[in-house]
Amino acid sequence: MSQLRKVAVVMGSDSDLPIVRKCLKVLDQFSVPYEVRVISAHRTPEAAMELARGAREAGFGVIIGAAGMAAHLAGVLAAYTTLPVIGLPCKGPSLEGLDALLAMVQMPKGVPVATVAIDGGDNAAYLAIQMLAISDPELARKLDEKKAAMAQEVMDKDKKLQKEIMG
Amino acid sequence: MSQLRKVAVVMGSDSDLPIVRKCLKVLDQFSVPYEVRVISAHRTPEAAMELARGAREAGFGVIIGAAGMAAHLAGVLAAYTTLPVIGLPCKGPSLEGLDALLAMVQMPKGVPVATVAIDGGDNAAYLAIQMLAISDPELARKLDEKKAAMAQEVMDKDKKLQKEIMG
Amino acid sequence: MSQLRKVAVVMGSDSDLPIVRKCLKVLDQFSVPYEVRVISAHRTPEAAMELARGAREAGFGVIIGAAGMAAHLAGVLAAYTTLPVIGLPCKGPSLEGLDALLAMVQMPKGVPVATVAIDGGDNAAYLAIQMLAISDPELARKLDEKKAAMAQEVMDKDKKLQKEIMG
Amino acid sequence: MSQLRKVAVVMGSDSDLPIVRKCLKVLDQFSVPYEVRVISAHRTPEAAMELARGAREAGFGVIIGAAGMAAHLAGVLAAYTTLPVIGLPCKGPSLEGLDALLAMVQMPKGVPVATVAIDGGDNAAYLAIQMLAISDPELARKLDEKKAAMAQEVMDKDKKLQKEIMG
Amino acid sequence: MSQLRKVAVVMGSDSDLPIVRKCLKVLDQFSVPYEVRVISAHRTPEAAMELARGAREAGFGVIIGAAGMAAHLAGVLAAYTTLPVIGLPCKGPSLEGLDALLAMVQMPKGVPVATVAIDGGDNAAYLAIQMLAISDPELARKLDEKKAAMAQEVMDKDKKLQKEIMG
Amino acid sequence: MSQLRKVAVVMGSDSDLPIVRKCLKVLDQFSVPYEVRVISAHRTPEAAMELARGAREAGFGVIIGAAGMAAHLAGVLAAYTTLPVIGLPCKGPSLEGLDALLAMVQMPKGVPVATVAIDGGDNAAYLAIQMLAISDPELARKLDEKKAAMAQEVMDKDKKLQKEIMG
Amino acid sequence: MSQLRKVAVVMGSDSDLPIVRKCLKVLDQFSVPYEVRVISAHRTPEAAMELARGAREAGFGVIIGAAGMAAHLAGVLAAYTTLPVIGLPCKGPSLEGLDALLAMVQMPKGVPVATVAIDGGDNAAYLAIQMLAISDPELARKLDEKKAAMAQEVMDKDKKLQKEIMG
Amino acid sequence: MSQLRKVAVVMGSDSDLPIVRKCLKVLDQFSVPYEVRVISAHRTPEAAMELARGAREAGFGVIIGAAGMAAHLAGVLAAYTTLPVIGLPCKGPSLEGLDALLAMVQMPKGVPVATVAIDGGDNAAYLAIQMLAISDPELARKLDEKKAAMAQEVMDKDKKLQKEIMG
Repeated sequence: MSQLRKVAVVMGSDSDLPIVRKCLKVLDQFSVPYEVRVISAHRTPEAAMELARGAREAGFGVIIGAAGMAAHLAGVLAAYTTLPVIGLPCKGPSLEGLDALLAMVQMPKGVPVATVAIDGGDNAAYLAIQMLAISDPELARKLDEKKAAMAQEVMDKDKKLQKEIMG
Repeated sequence: MSQLRKVAVVMGSDSDLPIVRKCLKVLDQFSVPYEVRVISAHRTPEAAMELARGAREAGFGVIIGAAGMAAHLAGVLAAYTTLPVIGLPCKGPSLEGLDALLAMVQMPKGVPVATVAIDGGDNAAYLAIQMLAISDPELARKLDEKKAAMAQEVMDKDKKLQKEIMG
Repeated sequence: MSQLRKVAVVMGSDSDLPIVRKCLKVLDQFSVPYEVRVISAHRTPEAAMELARGAREAGFGVIIGAAGMAAHLAGVLAAYTTLPVIGLPCKGPSLEGLDALLAMVQMPKGVPVATVAIDGGDNAAYLAIQMLAISDPELARKLDEKKAAMAQEVMDKDKKLQKEIMG
Repeated sequence: MSQLRKVAVVMGSDSDLPIVRKCLKVLDQFSVPYEVRVISAHRTPEAAMELARGAREAGFGVIIGAAGMAAHLAGVLAAYTTLPVIGLPCKGPSLEGLDALLAMVQMPKGVPVATVAIDGGDNAAYLAIQMLAISDPELARKLDEKKAAMAQEVMDKDKKLQKEIMG
Repeated sequence: MSQLRKVAVVMGSDSDLPIVRKCLKVLDQFSVPYEVRVISAHRTPEAAMELARGAREAGFGVIIGAAGMAAHLAGVLAAYTTLPVIGLPCKGPSLEGLDALLAMVQMPKGVPVATVAIDGGDNAAYLAIQMLAISDPELARKLDEKKAAMAQEVMDKDKKLQKEIMG
Repeated sequence: MSQLRKVAVVMGSDSDLPIVRKCLKVLDQFSVPYEVRVISAHRTPEAAMELARGAREAGFGVIIGAAGMAAHLAGVLAAYTTLPVIGLPCKGPSLEGLDALLAMVQMPKGVPVATVAIDGGDNAAYLAIQMLAISDPELARKLDEKKAAMAQEVMDKDKKLQKEIMG
Repeated sequence: MSQLRKVAVVMGSDSDLPIVRKCLKVLDQFSVPYEVRVISAHRTPEAAMELARGAREAGFGVIIGAAGMAAHLAGVLAAYTTLPVIGLPCKGPSLEGLDALLAMVQMPKGVPVATVAIDGGDNAAYLAIQMLAISDPELARKLDEKKAAMAQEVMDKDKKLQKEIMG
Repeated sequence: MSQLRKVAVVMGSDSDLPIVRKCLKVLDQFSVPYEVRVISAHRTPEAAMELARGAREAGFGVIIGAAGMAAHLAGVLAAYTTLPVIGLPCKGPSLEGLDALLAMVQMPKGVPVATVAIDGGDNAAYLAIQMLAISDPELARKLDEKKAAMAQEVMDKDKKLQKEIMG
């Protein structure tokens, strides 16, 4: 009945786009509406503030912030909204993504960032959809279907591999 | 109108209780209903399965899994539900909590765990409330109020400290 | 006299197959019977439960669980059996395998996972064979022969290199 | 029928004794025979060699090596036997036990060390017992009983905590 | 002749005050004017924006941002000014300060944070003074004097220790 | 009126040149005068001493030290001057740059090194310019312009991406 | 016949003295002559240069450099001498000594530092004595005796513990 | 007068040969006699024992042990000799060489390993030569010459680069 809330997918740099595309693909599969933005926590901080402040009003339900290195984006967005913010740490040119992970997950009391795996674009989307599905039985049903499909996919690989190796 | 969904707060061991209490305190402040459980991913895995499988049906909206060391609890719960699962990594006797953090956050495609800071009991609760508030304007309003109060608290400390140090 | 117990070689994803093949090759060399499975701790957790629960009855003596990232597979299998479970951490796209290693080795009291080196497919097999050989003198003899052969191999390289470099 | 094989519990220094005592306590609970030794890989290497070489003959089924820092003990023991060797990394005065963990688990091809959690004395014992129980139905039965008891313990704590917190 | 520019010393939480006091003490020793603020990047982000934006105009020459965990404060300040921002990472309850260090130092292109040692309150001040002294010969002279005094202090300890130990 | 102070850009090895070139490019863009040197803290320490000691006298305002592995260069330069020294840690053949980062940033009391991101050649230059701009309104103006241009660049990418993805 | 060369034991700060005392005690046991110095690589770099440059001439055979955090001392000494320099990394207030270890061990080509364990004061001395004993049969004999004594000590503890535990 | 003592260069696997070749090249440049061996601490431990035990008698002055992963080789050699043992940690397929570094450097009291940089083949040789040169003025002279040549090499690069970049 109520219209589905949108997901704001924000990346700190267009170099994060390959990771973000995995995210968008999943949102498309679930027909969850989204908007994509390139907003830098350090170069266009006012844009981050503006987006986050007005996000609930503008019909967003969740914000995803993807960034690498000293990945402040998700935290900066979380500073200006009480919508849940998902942190998607991206692996940079050094330190194997540990810098982005710690800069996202170790948020102080009262301002959480829901952090997913390094370069885990898919999971940022799945988590956003799960959040929206809390109060949306139809979306929850789709998630259950997808979960069943993913299980089936593993079971098929299991059978195929057993046949291939065990003969 | 619709009744508020409950939060399941699950800890892997009662040694995690001090961290979990911070979580419960926040949920109490927001009058968010919850149930508390001690379920071990490795000792009582069937309980984890049972809880997670039936959680949506039982009126839960979010599950929080708190655990230390090789912290599988949140992931094991996520395996059996499409409700969002929040991972609360607890610092163990060695490795400064890095083990629990990585064991929670690095989840594979399709089964995310929304990970918060090491020992971040408060933030697990805030994140859960944010998720429930996506579709609950009243709860969102309370979050906004709390956010304003937290800001005021910092501003008060700011003034006090300036007076104290700057004279 | 008693028939040799089988090894269950379980991988969390078919992307772990290159590492697992090293494992199977060693088992083949020792004519140790095995079954190979693709079971995801998070996508097909019931399959993990079913396999582990019935493993001893089904004639398995050891279970090997190979997985990457937040590698819960071995721990999840260990939750449902008292057979020894060997954890084979696989290097993922980030963090150099440290995530899988910690998620496997840091198991809580009462539910150990016998963890081997990152991507150490061979050693998972050798360890499984060593376990089976505790009560199987014939298999122990084969292990001793292999140990002697591996020593000889090093000694041959030693001689060859000395000749090559020292003239 | 066949007599139960013994466990050799070797520590690199008597400073590791508090961790090792947890191990011995579990072995005692299962009435698994063991011998305890202080053998330093670097100070009494011949003792390590001697013990490991003759271990199978002397009726041992498993060897546990507990050590801290550059924890070579388990690897040195494994060099001289084809019995399974369990590595118990002990936390030293710096680096949170990461040094001992990596020095134990990252063994080269052909000479595995079955590594358990940092300071995981209990689990070293449980793993040893699981190995012995592969061919010992009575010991397997005891492990199953203990597993059930541990589950019950968690369930009791779960009930108690629910009563305490939920009223 | 020209009036000395002030240093803005900003801490993310009053729990960082012990570290910041070391900073203020050094500034006092050099009679460098400063203002102290408690501003949270996540709770009072507007205050951070306001301070940083107007800092140059208000007579500040350098900004020091002290924070722990996912320490975004220095980066958030740097986003709103072209004054140099010094990052002072504070050790939090876990991870030994590595989280704050990486969250401060790994800033993206164009928005640097001049990061000093974990809990290095003194050095944040020394660095700020060095920056101001670039164009202030009097302050440079004081730094040289202090450098000489610090050298003398080490030389005195050297002599004392030699006498004490060598007799 | 007063002539702009120069930046000394010192690299520990010419293998660091690719990183340093990013630095020089930014300095060129701002028409900030600089001198480039290859000086090894361990092979030509006297050159480091000589440069640092005379740097203020010779018209330098800031020194940048770029080095990898046990990156002592910046610290060694800082030992001989009270000019601000910027540390630019370069990623070496192992450890992902963590060695250089820690060897630069963890300087003891009284001798700070202003450390920037691993391989962050651009930011070393931006930080140097910010320091010089404290007392140089013209340079400060250029920094503000560049900041605006960088913001515009992100906004353009934002628009382009929105058009591309959202249609 | 030839007089024994001295060991220079240099610490970066007198706060490292407790670790250094372990070093001196071992040197005393072997009657190896030494001189103790407090020299800071960053505060009294000329003293470091002077000591290292003249060390061979002054009758030193080995230099030990003990320091914490960004531990440059050993590297700075090694820059001015071709005597072997032993690096003794000391655990500082954060990062568990990893900073000092990496800053010492990762030296560039041509200027090695012989690094020992974190806080390993004893081993810095043993290593120095081993170096001097290469050409000193009498000292080598003492080392062999000490090695035998250390072995005996372990064997005694072994016997005592066996009696105590095994009865 | 006295004949130069030899260096034993031992590698744990012939896969370490590329790193070891850098070592041999330096020894050749200094005409220091050496023997090269492939000895595995875990596959041919007796060879390690035999070499180390007889090394002093056989005319060796220093032993270099090169190995990767759980790099026990240097420690195992050190267990059987009082000659100085140099540890050369080699980067393996995961963990960036941190495993080998820690497994070498964190040796217990009384049995040091003189550890050099990860993959630092050159420096293992330089350190060995420095040790031999303690009592060999001719070799010390060669080291001084090489040190001067390395300095000259840097100075030449310095000039060349200045000309190239500064015009």
